[in-house]
Amino acid sequence: MTNIALLGLGVVGGGVAEVISQNNDTIARKTGEHINIKYILDLRDFPDHPLGGRVVHDINTILADPEVTVVAEMMGGSHPAYDYTRAALEAGKHVVTSNKEVVATFGAELLRIAKEHHVRYLFEASVGGGIPVIRPISSCLAANELTEVDGILNGTTNYILTQMIQASKSFEEALAEAQQKGYAERNPAADVEGIDSCRKICILSALAFGKLFSPNGVHTEGITAITGEDVANAEAYGGVIKLIGRTGLVDPSDPASGVFMLVAPHVIPHDNPLSGVDDVFNSILVRGNAVGDVMFYGRGAGNLPTASAVVSDIIDIIAHKDAEIFVPDWTSVSADELVAQQTLPYAFLVRVRIDATYDAACEQIRSVYPGVEILTNSDAYASVLSFVTPQTTESELKDALSTIGEAVSLIRIMPE
Amino acid sequence: MTNIALLGLGVVGGGVAEVISQNNDTIARKTGEHINIKYILDLRDFPDHPLGGRVVHDINTILADPEVTVVAEMMGGSHPAYDYTRAALEAGKHVVTSNKEVVATFGAELLRIAKEHHVRYLFEASVGGGIPVIRPISSCLAANELTEVDGILNGTTNYILTQMIQASKSFEEALAEAQQKGYAERNPAADVEGIDSCRKICILSALAFGKLFSPNGVHTEGITAITGEDVANAEAYGGVIKLIGRTGLVDPSDPASGVFMLVAPHVIPHDNPLSGVDDVFNSILVRGNAVGDVMFYGRGAGNLPTASAVVSDIIDIIAHKDAEIFVPDWTSVSADELVAQQTLPYAFLVRVRIDATYDAACEQIRSVYPGVEILTNSDAYASVLSFVTPQTTESELKDALSTIGEAVSLIRIMPE
Repeated sequence: MTNIALLGLGVVGGGVAEVISQNNDTIARKTGEHINIKYILDLRDFPDHPLGGRVVHDINTILADPEVTVVAEMMGGSHPAYDYTRAALEAGKHVVTSNKEVVATFGAELLRIAKEHHVRYLFEASVGGGIPVIRPISSCLAANELTEVDGILNGTTNYILTQMIQASKSFEEALAEAQQKGYAERNPAADVEGIDSCRKICILSALAFGKLFSPNGVHTEGITAITGEDVANAEAYGGVIKLIGRTGLVDPSDPASGVFMLVAPHVIPHDNPLSGVDDVFNSILVRGNAVGDVMFYGRGAGNLPTASAVVSDIIDIIAHKDAEIFVPDWTSVSADELVAQQTLPYAFLVRVRIDATYDAACEQIRSVYPGVEILTNSDAYASVLSFVTPQTTESELKDALSTIGEAVSLIRIMPE
Repeated sequence: MTNIALLGLGVVGGGVAEVISQNNDTIARKTGEHINIKYILDLRDFPDHPLGGRVVHDINTILADPEVTVVAEMMGGSHPAYDYTRAALEAGKHVVTSNKEVVATFGAELLRIAKEHHVRYLFEASVGGGIPVIRPISSCLAANELTEVDGILNGTTNYILTQMIQASKSFEEALAEAQQKGYAERNPAADVEGIDSCRKICILSALAFGKLFSPNGVHTEGITAITGEDVANAEAYGGVIKLIGRTGLVDPSDPASGVFMLVAPHVIPHDNPLSGVDDVFNSILVRGNAVGDVMFYGRGAGNLPTASAVVSDIIDIIAHKDAEIFVPDWTSVSADELVAQQTLPYAFLVRVRIDATYDAACEQIRSVYPGVEILTNSDAYASVLSFVTPQTTESELKDALSTIGEAVSLIRIMPE
């Protein structure tokens, strides 16, 4: 029997208790051991919960008990989650977590501490909810030089965009509906402004390239400025708008060429498999120099899917007990070391305001981008025109637009 | 440094040599060790290959060398691949393989032998080429009771069907094109008759349910009888035809309810993510009681993708050296123990020949299936009519058809 402690009995913590209770015999069949939740740390008491008698309020009860070998941290937020994680690792306990904020901010340090204390720090649940992605990248694709990772990493924003695309809702309407269904929080900023996606792509980037870039400095755009016109223009171009976390090598054939990373709405052409990922589903596309493109798909949130990943990490620890497992070595670096996103090659879907007749406005655009296709009809023209640029960079585009008119919106088009 | 031996320097074996040569420094960075290909067993000599000097013709050279710790078997076919695998495991060497025929036929026995000799038998490359699926199922989803696995498991047939759907080619035309492009072998029987898919779904079923059913007795239909009419009818219904390997619990809430398995063309409704998997791509959808549906997608064949999986298995062995790893326990059972596929609940897309006027033929169908929608227009009627049944079973359907007319084709519709 393996004794564990849960830190937090919220949505994910409650899910973990439920999955262990429901599937404990299956787990024992696979590992030879049952899991026993010996303690649950929470500020609250849970007199009506079947495990209510195991709730404690002092982390030291858990740290001091040598029978507890695994701690599952599902508190959310940086503090005290980071502090408790660190203390547990230093006390020689394995830690598994669903807390992307802690992994994205302190992951390099915590992995180092885990290594020093011959324990493991696992975080499958921090990206993609229940979708297996962390271990597949670090283990199943280990034979590859990875060159790029692109992901739809946030279910809330993907639900909102899907409603805007398929039901022609406005951003505000779709957000209100997502809140009503429990897919978005009352304060949706971390989701709709891309902060959650940013933490996740930082974790994936560290897995792929060994450097944990500080999420704070990563170029991050959310979806609050996306309008029905953008959605229609994307459709006219042949794609759909998705919020994408993207990281990769600038030159896929040269690992020394530098790493880029950004979070932003992208037009995903219909022939890209990410274009079909709708509603609250997440998907992560990984490119390796041997395997080509592989994609992982599933529910990126929810209590049971996320709990599935947490418990699978616990099972992995039980199944490899006493083994000296290879621990990844991450360097913590400033986002200043990223290749500047303004220099990345992109075509852009542009909306621009030009105070002129339709024909004159078209001519003004074509004087800079000869032969470019204008997506706006003369009938629909009311001083704003949409078009798709040839491949350029954000820096060049902004220079060019200064001679054309006032930029209303710039959306990147996902390269092949 | 880890010394390994390759059995076979064909398409996959050559890919493994290439991936190791190209990515050996990356591998060493991840595991602390380089891989050295000490021997290559092949009937042929390869005087011009950079590793030509390491070719041997006698398996005993490899078995007798204590420096060789890992053997990678990529010979294909049952014999001597099975015999060499068994001998290597008995000699205390780990074995990794891409050989689905050996895993599907002898996997239970070989896993047992591996366990007895404290070595590992890994086969990530046997299903889905480079797509991580074996390890994600057995490890990342270990917290779940799995209830179903559905897969597009054969790139050749998926390419042919995609050409029939998107380019309106006949089966014969599409097959000829696949052969010309190197996607299909000159003798395509193992692919187009579903035998390859059957071996793979047997492996996935064993991972999910612990029983390795003998592939020989599993109901297996290929795609040779699929016509343009079937494709058009599927489109009219709202889906596409894919060759699916399918296994699951008859009652998802009761593991004792029995396991079903079959390989057959299915109509996949457009809202099922498997419907968008085209060309030579493979995809595997796994359903668990905590995680819900997750899907894995990528290139299911090809030298480098498959080699990626073989080498990742080798890396896994190096990374867990000296660890006592949990080995799955498969029971080898006859396919007679499967729940009879004729009793599975399915709606069917049916083409039936009725010698009567259009109206009389429709009435004949509706006398058995009241209110059913007839997909064939009166204009297009030439004694064959298409319709979709309500949920039934193959047994019931065949009884019903005996009173309606002569069945031309029956295609299952994938349930939700």
